[in-house]
Amino acid sequence: MSGSTLGELFRVTNFGESHGPAIGCVIDGCPPGMALSEADIQPDLDKRRPGTSRHVTQRNEPDVVEILSGVYQGKTTGTPICLLIRNTDQRSKDYGNIAESFRPGHADYTYWHKYGIRDPRGGGRSSARMTAPMVGAGAVARKWLGEAYGVCIRGCLTAIGEREIARDDWAQVGSNPFFAATAQGIAELEAYMDALRKSGDSVGARLYVEASGVPVGLGAPLFDKLDADIAKAMMGINAVKGIEIGAGFGCVAQRGSEHGDELTPEGFASNHAGGILGGIATGQDVAVSLAIKPTSSIRLPRRSIDLAGAPTMVETHGRHDPCVGIRATPIAEAMLALVLMDHALRHRAQCGDVRVLTPDIARQPSR
Amino acid sequence: MSGSTLGELFRVTNFGESHGPAIGCVIDGCPPGMALSEADIQPDLDKRRPGTSRHVTQRNEPDVVEILSGVYQGKTTGTPICLLIRNTDQRSKDYGNIAESFRPGHADYTYWHKYGIRDPRGGGRSSARMTAPMVGAGAVARKWLGEAYGVCIRGCLTAIGEREIARDDWAQVGSNPFFAATAQGIAELEAYMDALRKSGDSVGARLYVEASGVPVGLGAPLFDKLDADIAKAMMGINAVKGIEIGAGFGCVAQRGSEHGDELTPEGFASNHAGGILGGIATGQDVAVSLAIKPTSSIRLPRRSIDLAGAPTMVETHGRHDPCVGIRATPIAEAMLALVLMDHALRHRAQCGDVRVLTPDIARQPSR
Amino acid sequence: MSGSTLGELFRVTNFGESHGPAIGCVIDGCPPGMALSEADIQPDLDKRRPGTSRHVTQRNEPDVVEILSGVYQGKTTGTPICLLIRNTDQRSKDYGNIAESFRPGHADYTYWHKYGIRDPRGGGRSSARMTAPMVGAGAVARKWLGEAYGVCIRGCLTAIGEREIARDDWAQVGSNPFFAATAQGIAELEAYMDALRKSGDSVGARLYVEASGVPVGLGAPLFDKLDADIAKAMMGINAVKGIEIGAGFGCVAQRGSEHGDELTPEGFASNHAGGILGGIATGQDVAVSLAIKPTSSIRLPRRSIDLAGAPTMVETHGRHDPCVGIRATPIAEAMLALVLMDHALRHRAQCGDVRVLTPDIARQPSR
Amino acid sequence: MSGSTLGELFRVTNFGESHGPAIGCVIDGCPPGMALSEADIQPDLDKRRPGTSRHVTQRNEPDVVEILSGVYQGKTTGTPICLLIRNTDQRSKDYGNIAESFRPGHADYTYWHKYGIRDPRGGGRSSARMTAPMVGAGAVARKWLGEAYGVCIRGCLTAIGEREIARDDWAQVGSNPFFAATAQGIAELEAYMDALRKSGDSVGARLYVEASGVPVGLGAPLFDKLDADIAKAMMGINAVKGIEIGAGFGCVAQRGSEHGDELTPEGFASNHAGGILGGIATGQDVAVSLAIKPTSSIRLPRRSIDLAGAPTMVETHGRHDPCVGIRATPIAEAMLALVLMDHALRHRAQCGDVRVLTPDIARQPSR
Repeated sequence: MSGSTLGELFRVTNFGESHGPAIGCVIDGCPPGMALSEADIQPDLDKRRPGTSRHVTQRNEPDVVEILSGVYQGKTTGTPICLLIRNTDQRSKDYGNIAESFRPGHADYTYWHKYGIRDPRGGGRSSARMTAPMVGAGAVARKWLGEAYGVCIRGCLTAIGEREIARDDWAQVGSNPFFAATAQGIAELEAYMDALRKSGDSVGARLYVEASGVPVGLGAPLFDKLDADIAKAMMGINAVKGIEIGAGFGCVAQRGSEHGDELTPEGFASNHAGGILGGIATGQDVAVSLAIKPTSSIRLPRRSIDLAGAPTMVETHGRHDPCVGIRATPIAEAMLALVLMDHALRHRAQCGDVRVLTPDIARQPSR
Repeated sequence: MSGSTLGELFRVTNFGESHGPAIGCVIDGCPPGMALSEADIQPDLDKRRPGTSRHVTQRNEPDVVEILSGVYQGKTTGTPICLLIRNTDQRSKDYGNIAESFRPGHADYTYWHKYGIRDPRGGGRSSARMTAPMVGAGAVARKWLGEAYGVCIRGCLTAIGEREIARDDWAQVGSNPFFAATAQGIAELEAYMDALRKSGDSVGARLYVEASGVPVGLGAPLFDKLDADIAKAMMGINAVKGIEIGAGFGCVAQRGSEHGDELTPEGFASNHAGGILGGIATGQDVAVSLAIKPTSSIRLPRRSIDLAGAPTMVETHGRHDPCVGIRATPIAEAMLALVLMDHALRHRAQCGDVRVLTPDIARQPSR
Repeated sequence: MSGSTLGELFRVTNFGESHGPAIGCVIDGCPPGMALSEADIQPDLDKRRPGTSRHVTQRNEPDVVEILSGVYQGKTTGTPICLLIRNTDQRSKDYGNIAESFRPGHADYTYWHKYGIRDPRGGGRSSARMTAPMVGAGAVARKWLGEAYGVCIRGCLTAIGEREIARDDWAQVGSNPFFAATAQGIAELEAYMDALRKSGDSVGARLYVEASGVPVGLGAPLFDKLDADIAKAMMGINAVKGIEIGAGFGCVAQRGSEHGDELTPEGFASNHAGGILGGIATGQDVAVSLAIKPTSSIRLPRRSIDLAGAPTMVETHGRHDPCVGIRATPIAEAMLALVLMDHALRHRAQCGDVRVLTPDIARQPSR
Repeated sequence: MSGSTLGELFRVTNFGESHGPAIGCVIDGCPPGMALSEADIQPDLDKRRPGTSRHVTQRNEPDVVEILSGVYQGKTTGTPICLLIRNTDQRSKDYGNIAESFRPGHADYTYWHKYGIRDPRGGGRSSARMTAPMVGAGAVARKWLGEAYGVCIRGCLTAIGEREIARDDWAQVGSNPFFAATAQGIAELEAYMDALRKSGDSVGARLYVEASGVPVGLGAPLFDKLDADIAKAMMGINAVKGIEIGAGFGCVAQRGSEHGDELTPEGFASNHAGGILGGIATGQDVAVSLAIKPTSSIRLPRRSIDLAGAPTMVETHGRHDPCVGIRATPIAEAMLALVLMDHALRHRAQCGDVRVLTPDIARQPSR
């Protein structure tokens, strides 16, 4: 296996390393007949791209996607779609001083022990660059989900370090460098980030992503529950250390009389469940929060060992994100799309004939 | 698929419903030649069993496990091991008043919309009873991991509702009804729980589980990362709404200079990573926290709808857990064992020939 | 993995050994809402049962199936269906003289080398008894396929040893002990078999199985082609050594001008393809032939080695089939049903929205 | 799924169409540390290449392979290996007259009904060109199997049409255009093929492929048996309609006293089993025969229908193989390598600790 495939029916196999010739993915199982071109995919890649503001890594990759297969006369054929992205701006010399040691908090040590070999350039396979093909695949999934069910997916940051970020105006997400869904406090965040970058350190972030229009019924208990697969996909994103669905860790102190979302003919009275009950979508917004750890590649010297196990110091130079969480937003959106896509096909496989007369209350007009 | 199988190489397929004739699982891929009998499995099932204190549900199931296959002359044969547990104490009449409506916070509504049919007795397939076979399978995995690598797995509650529970004395876990790793404040917890049960409401909990002795190298990036598969397995446990690895959501406010665990010849200087970097085990303790929501089955009346969508009230009677988190501890231990077992086999499949001279610092004698 | 699961969406996991307490399977992914009871399954099991004529093994197992889960009020719930069959007539002493050696042509030697342990009683896991749960699962699949698409599956023997058997009257299949689709030559076959049994030897057989009403479009190239999955499932049946689709090995000498089945508005002009082109069903009858080797357990003495590798002689006594091919017919029908079922769900997952105006010529009234 | 992935642990995902920009595959799960470069792969691709003799299709593709990932400093890293092959010699106009009809014996009709869309150029995804990436992946597998276990794989044609071809001199395979393992009758075959090509028709073939040095124990009963997975992989090759293991259909008339291969301390006395018993390798040569149907693309006019279902005639021009079986030999070798590779990793995952004292008689020096 080796674990580079996500999904069962809408199956995405990712390949490539940070400084190899190219990165990409193969999407197998896409329904046929959907209009698709590079123009449907490139915008999402551009959102993720490094070098788009001074607050993110300064590697300048155009990330131009090429569709190598699976599309004929502008429509998906049902056969595998290969997306290819050539690497163009690898600066291998920036990483030269870490080939013989292991950066704390990074995968250098574990890749070395697992494989007995590692590509140290830019983190090799462990680089966040490997999320680019997933964003490409996510764009395909989002298109199909939008056309088939009217699903909308959107994400934003809700905290950078100890600074909370309000979520009160989604229209602002594209207007600031932080994917913040607010107009409040942007200037303060900019100053905070500038100071952080100068200090050479890094900080974590919290990210929120939601999907509306999700059809009731998606999810396959007991183990391929919708939230379980979302957790798996999100935890697979570089630097993620925590995941919550709905009220998440807030559930711990809640009472059942408060947490349980009551049902009415006009819809659910609340959404502490985050849109998922018993592992199956209720039709309400699927709401997910992620905890993203601070970047491991910082300019401050840190203790480590060398290949022989002797003590050494590590100091990373070159181009780095002081807060990787900022660029994770389009990635989390893409992963959510991929999981929903996979489950949409799985649900129709097993339950395509099911007809239920009980109203789908999450779709009531009054909501 | 239908999602009732966990794992790729140590593969567990779960079957059964709360009030059906029997529940169980089939374990496929267990290495041959390991001593195994019901006596290796029954103790873990007993820890999970309902009816063991007044603070958990009063359904009295002996949960006696029977091994139907895969063992010959006391040793595993490498062929599938079927574990069967007969249900004996189903009281269907306790659930009679919910067949025509949907309990808020429960899977009734979603199972109905997904399948167009549901077994309402005891929650049917969505019942926490379905964790019993997983605890059985987990016992098999724990035995092998312990014998092969010296892996130890243990869990405890770290919060019930708003009450934090210290983790300062693992020896206490079996001595109180809360799987609390402390001698402090047990009487207060008892009083708290008695009041809660009388009130008819429920509360959430936070659970901590760790594994020591985990071999460095387990995990298969990019998507079958060890933490991603742990997140998936844990989110599959009934009522789990959040998962953290290591520092978890505490990472958000951390600096990289603090979070990144430095390496020294004597071992890692800290374990904010929770034993996993880049999705691969470092050899340090794997540390996981779960958020468990308050039970949805409470005696307080709640608004809902009936099958036709008309408003109604729901009030659940019968035997229920006021805090399902209490009994989740052995379940979380089992799920962690299953994920580690699966990854142990996967790692040796791909990397069985790898030899690395760099010391495995997590195993240094000074630790 | 360990290989005891067949299928991706209609997934059957088989467990048990010939002389263990019970055998069975878990079916995961069955669509919900279908009427199902033991009465739908038992007849197929009875067809397969040992002891039904003097020409097959004389072990007398009632093979009574019990549904342990996945059915509520007589309908499938969409949750896993466990079928259990208790073993009652194990005569372990019949196998006593082979625990220390390896029967030629049997799996004793390979199981020993693979697992380092084997259950020698009745062949353990390698026994043809393990096909019984598959026949049970096949009955569930046949019911669904019949109700959903009008699929019919039937098989017969077309050769026993060097004796060809005509296929000219399907109505005869249940009227003779050979699943022969003819009234011709049955008495001669009986005499032939009596002589064979007395001689202590065994002979091979050729089996034919077909499915009509198969929806056009089933099959998932490149590797999960319908014929590829059929070949895999059939080769998984004990003693199968060859598989043909349509003209099979007869293709070798055919010309393309003869082999290629022409298309007309009234239907295909022939069916050399066996109902599958490019790995996808055409809608024509799917036609499969199997070669079944002669039983390895014979009463004639044969050379072998013991556990230490020293030469020894092996002579099997007890109850054996002189021609295992006779009872393979219901098994092959079941396996074909399972593959078609799995592919029916897979096809609707990916292509459920496809609408094609070109006529489905295999379904033309004139055929 | 969509079925474009072969294997569980050594997993190959194939993408591309005959006339798209490129074809290729992603190999996930390759053990790390093996020396690998394009030079290890290109020779096998060259053997498969079209245009290498007048008896095969005259499309002139250089089939130059490029490794895009998974290799660092000349060694496999354990991360996915992407092989890319650019298409350069597509002559779309050669296929222009079949966009509106369906070629008998080809996948045109089934792809149209399944997907509602098809790429008709060169057969699109159903083209035998899609075997090129598998030959590339097979080269990687062969290298590892050769270095790890000394496995050797070789194939040859044993019949073209009604003409049998002797298998008496493996050294001749590369010396004639037919992959014939004999010096006998080559000129007669050339004349036969020239006449066939002039006639515009095509003929089938029978192909034999064997692997020596296979470790005893490979295979995962009941359903992932080694022969079952071989059958699946081979049936997935374009135009294959039949598969035999060992004595194959010759088993039907054999007696058990003849078929069962006796065991002696010096080795097995025969190999009717084809190297596999109970689905597990014995250590003897794995012997497989395939039946390959005659090419469906012939110049003779044939009856068909158009997209509206009205009768029409089809006549294919352009570049075609009068006997596709000739070029199938390196493909069958590659598929056998891929299955053995996958099973080698699976076996060591589950049974890596097994130690058996009984001699591995297939490896005895006297053989």
